[in-house]
Amino acid sequence: MFIYADNAATTPTSKKVVEAMLPYFTDVYGNPSSLYSVGQKAKEVLEESREKIAQILGASPKEIYFTSGGSEADNQAIISAARIGERNGKKHIVSTAFEHHAVLHTLDALKKEGFEVTLVDVHENGVVDPQEIRDAIREDTALVTVMYVNNEIGTIQPIKEIGEICKEKNVIFHTDAVQAVSHIHINVKEQNIDMLSISAHKFHGPKGVGVLYAKKGIALTNVINGGAQERGKRAGTENLAGIVGMTVALEDAVKNIDCVNERLKGLQDKLIEGLSNIPYSQLNGDREKRITSNVSFCFEGIEGESLLLLLDDKGIAVSSGSACTSGSLDPSHVLLAIGRPHEVAHGSLRLSLAEDITEEEVDYIISAVADVVEYLRGFSPFWGDLITGKRPHIFEEHTVA
Amino acid sequence: MFIYADNAATTPTSKKVVEAMLPYFTDVYGNPSSLYSVGQKAKEVLEESREKIAQILGASPKEIYFTSGGSEADNQAIISAARIGERNGKKHIVSTAFEHHAVLHTLDALKKEGFEVTLVDVHENGVVDPQEIRDAIREDTALVTVMYVNNEIGTIQPIKEIGEICKEKNVIFHTDAVQAVSHIHINVKEQNIDMLSISAHKFHGPKGVGVLYAKKGIALTNVINGGAQERGKRAGTENLAGIVGMTVALEDAVKNIDCVNERLKGLQDKLIEGLSNIPYSQLNGDREKRITSNVSFCFEGIEGESLLLLLDDKGIAVSSGSACTSGSLDPSHVLLAIGRPHEVAHGSLRLSLAEDITEEEVDYIISAVADVVEYLRGFSPFWGDLITGKRPHIFEEHTVA
Repeated sequence: MFIYADNAATTPTSKKVVEAMLPYFTDVYGNPSSLYSVGQKAKEVLEESREKIAQILGASPKEIYFTSGGSEADNQAIISAARIGERNGKKHIVSTAFEHHAVLHTLDALKKEGFEVTLVDVHENGVVDPQEIRDAIREDTALVTVMYVNNEIGTIQPIKEIGEICKEKNVIFHTDAVQAVSHIHINVKEQNIDMLSISAHKFHGPKGVGVLYAKKGIALTNVINGGAQERGKRAGTENLAGIVGMTVALEDAVKNIDCVNERLKGLQDKLIEGLSNIPYSQLNGDREKRITSNVSFCFEGIEGESLLLLLDDKGIAVSSGSACTSGSLDPSHVLLAIGRPHEVAHGSLRLSLAEDITEEEVDYIISAVADVVEYLRGFSPFWGDLITGKRPHIFEEHTVA
Repeated sequence: MFIYADNAATTPTSKKVVEAMLPYFTDVYGNPSSLYSVGQKAKEVLEESREKIAQILGASPKEIYFTSGGSEADNQAIISAARIGERNGKKHIVSTAFEHHAVLHTLDALKKEGFEVTLVDVHENGVVDPQEIRDAIREDTALVTVMYVNNEIGTIQPIKEIGEICKEKNVIFHTDAVQAVSHIHINVKEQNIDMLSISAHKFHGPKGVGVLYAKKGIALTNVINGGAQERGKRAGTENLAGIVGMTVALEDAVKNIDCVNERLKGLQDKLIEGLSNIPYSQLNGDREKRITSNVSFCFEGIEGESLLLLLDDKGIAVSSGSACTSGSLDPSHVLLAIGRPHEVAHGSLRLSLAEDITEEEVDYIISAVADVVEYLRGFSPFWGDLITGKRPHIFEEHTVA
């Protein structure tokens, strides 16, 4: 059995998407900036893709900018809002401590330039309280940036409410919707979103392509200077095959949101229940305010890395924290942000389910995780200390099986 | 007949490259940052690609950074050198007036920050004199950036000599080699290159992927902040399919440089001779110091845009100036830089030949261009003025046929 349960890290590109991309490698290969037929045909398809994506997001085509992915989109959104703020004497940004690194590290770069950043609490349930965003906004706030769905614990943020506050306070509102767009219906106008980032490879599109939505009137600052592509705001010959692939993938993902959510809800419940039965385990993030594909747990007394390597041996691909931070010895900043102690955050497991996961596979995952956790605890001197009472258990609600 | 003669704008992705990419969409789709097998397999292939590209360029794998293309690579190279300079009190950059916009517009952005930029003359033949680079370098020069091959007129710059001067003067040397890497053997060490940019779609690789080579010891500044990919210097999940495609394409291109050059030389000669027979025409750029695939001409008394549209009707895809600046009413900055007057620069034609172009196709191009130029001149009041002697001809060496 092979179960890929790390779809928040990346997804396989669907066969349908690959088929859709193929003509744009070898047939309609023209540079969309070229005036002859094979260039203009490329240009037409580029603009059709822009229209389709705009329609899905409730935006206008002129508000859609193609980028090389979610990270670039996050960078450009934040830099652009910062520059607009700067020109108006506003050098304060509101965000949260559990944003993606593409947001946090861009904020770090701005801090070095003299920007002030307030990170609002995400609480133990991993959900921001809009009232705290309101309280954090100052006269000199240039931007509020809060992710739509957290990439590690899957919690859904009250984006519409935060957007409403930003609108009222006349502050630009950006949301990193990379983990949301294929799970939640997004309409930027209805949800008061000024800027939004998405990445194709999170919803069965290709890697290396994404979208920045920026509301009309927001002057973007280039992250990449050069040619006049994307109305002068993002230089570089357009990755048309990738853009077409992303468009097909997004259409498919959005069309299936409701039925996939309905299907996954029961399997998610089963997984959460099954993993909760493992002693000294705890679900990360709110039980209800989460996307249906995410199950994130901490297990006391083990290392997440060992857990995922042994699960890999059993044919289950999962992560401990996000893929972007793996290889690092630090525990997940997301888990620390929701108050997990260091030693517990190390023992984390993220399952992000495929749309077509089966009940049989869920049963297999539960039993494999239980076995591996028990096995690893057998080796752990730390766990021995917990058993003998030399160290307190963090999650008191369980007794050792 | 259909002849695509705009390979400097972009190339069709080769079927071999597409075949090589396919497994990385649907099979080895893991995130290279993930620790389980399908992620580690992706990581392995990523690093193999890096090694292959390093070897081709004469670099070490740790000096190769994957980007979203040539524009991003140019931006990052220049920004990085500028920041290094800034930290050492050096805020002067030497370049040329006929660089790609990815270079020139990045320099413009730095000028707004207080950097000074000296643009060295490129002369009528479109070739930089290394002595003038030497003369332009100052105590506070942070960077010299000179393209390897000009994208519009195909002239080859004396990169090794410029690099030697920079080495002697202890100034970082970057070259935009986007138009060179598939036409000229490049070895960064032998040719004294500190930083170099390439883009896959110019040599039958996919769009949306490129390389920045940066010599060991050069501290890169991120253009895209976020995850720890590319040793922390370029965030975003790696576009593995694109990277594999680029690698295969580059291997193929470099393997064939000599035989393609030998093949194209005669056809280029024939084209230049044929087009020179059109009255009041002139070759742009040095007759000898140019890549074998480029033929660039100016024709007095016509508009390049009309020329290319009528050639498109005859099944020939060409450009007037570069694709990146088309749609603009300004004449090519490259042609102005080599001293073409405004009204002549407007009448330009760039042919960038495919490796497999035939003699028959070359004959067809010559006859089609001659016909279209004559036809357009019949409409031109400007041309009428030239014929009647009311305005001087620029290219005196011809008589009207």
